[in-house]
Amino acid sequence: MIEVIALDGDDTLWHSEHLFVDTQERFRNLVRPHVDLDDADLDARLLEVERRNLPLFGYGVKAFTLSLVETAIEVTDGRIPGRELQAVLDLGKVLIDHPVDLLDGAREAVDALTDTYRVMVITKGDLLHQETKVARSGLAELFWHVEIVSEKDEATYQRILDRHGVAPATFLMVGNSVRSDVLPVLAIGARAVHVPYSVTWALEHADSDPDLLAFPVLDSLAQLPACIDALQAQA
Amino acid sequence: MIEVIALDGDDTLWHSEHLFVDTQERFRNLVRPHVDLDDADLDARLLEVERRNLPLFGYGVKAFTLSLVETAIEVTDGRIPGRELQAVLDLGKVLIDHPVDLLDGAREAVDALTDTYRVMVITKGDLLHQETKVARSGLAELFWHVEIVSEKDEATYQRILDRHGVAPATFLMVGNSVRSDVLPVLAIGARAVHVPYSVTWALEHADSDPDLLAFPVLDSLAQLPACIDALQAQA
Repeated sequence: MIEVIALDGDDTLWHSEHLFVDTQERFRNLVRPHVDLDDADLDARLLEVERRNLPLFGYGVKAFTLSLVETAIEVTDGRIPGRELQAVLDLGKVLIDHPVDLLDGAREAVDALTDTYRVMVITKGDLLHQETKVARSGLAELFWHVEIVSEKDEATYQRILDRHGVAPATFLMVGNSVRSDVLPVLAIGARAVHVPYSVTWALEHADSDPDLLAFPVLDSLAQLPACIDALQAQA
Repeated sequence: MIEVIALDGDDTLWHSEHLFVDTQERFRNLVRPHVDLDDADLDARLLEVERRNLPLFGYGVKAFTLSLVETAIEVTDGRIPGRELQAVLDLGKVLIDHPVDLLDGAREAVDALTDTYRVMVITKGDLLHQETKVARSGLAELFWHVEIVSEKDEATYQRILDRHGVAPATFLMVGNSVRSDVLPVLAIGARAVHVPYSVTWALEHADSDPDLLAFPVLDSLAQLPACIDALQAQA
């Protein structure tokens, strides 16, 4: 029987990726006058820099901002003026300070689930930024625990379950990323529900084919309480 | 009686601040040709930017690197070439990837303490970078828990003790910062030992006068096991 339900933060409880997409558009507008590259090439160069920096910087807006600055310098061969690099830095500041906008049904789902289950958040990114988003979400009081992690792999999930004395058979993870929220959770013998978001960051695409594994896929968190009732009835 | 001993990471278990000081010197060398400011003024401008960015970026090398780039642009009125800003970015990368150099006596102290106590790390900064430093320290296996936090205030310490079911009267914190490792710990009714480092970052200076409070001050972690024996004998 499920006792503990964990929800991912970005693009599961609150909107995130579309803010990055908007920021990337503003970034292209700042850089384009200084370089002969089309949008797709610029995006590809940024992704290359992000991928290269990931082992050093990890996830989150600070890493993203550093990669934006580096890409702007790299693609312009250092020709972009300092003043415009400050504008690139400022894009990161706006992103980090953006209000938290909950997804439809998120508040109601969390409210409904806390009647029966211990509900937690497991999210990755910058520590302070994720803490701020949980606080700004207005949901903080409802969560049993909030875990901010640097990577969402099997070892991370196992460590969190061990720390809180949760058996995998009683644990369910809910999130928008098959790679981060579903596959590693299934691998440690727990359950997962996938709630896709309209956009997925390229570095979140799953390597393996999830079609071979069975897990519920929902259109919205509004369907989550009924989905969990159904899972419990099967158990 | 003391049961749980927590150690700070940066400048308590391993060297850190002198790497920032070295980086800051390299930073001045990069910026100086483009601006008419002496070293003290440059340092003051950087500190001003760091202080301004702290609520948004928090602690750690990524925040520091973003502030370096911003300061370089600001003090040169945007005249610093992009190529040299890449060199500034690279200073941050070198800093984040630097080997972990333990302080004298750190390994022996942790080894000795784990015979009798549960020993943990409570450190602030970038999540991934601090995790990497714990892993590279070679001490990871000795720690009961590792807690990486965005701020070290009373609420943070209380939350960590609650999470692990530790009573304040059984908890001792050891660290180099009076502001972060000593005062908030004493305030929640636990004990603290101060092991000063040779350099203290300006934003770590304590606001209140710690002379009014009594806590042991050691020259080195090598003295820690004997200090704790003495505290236990008093109890």
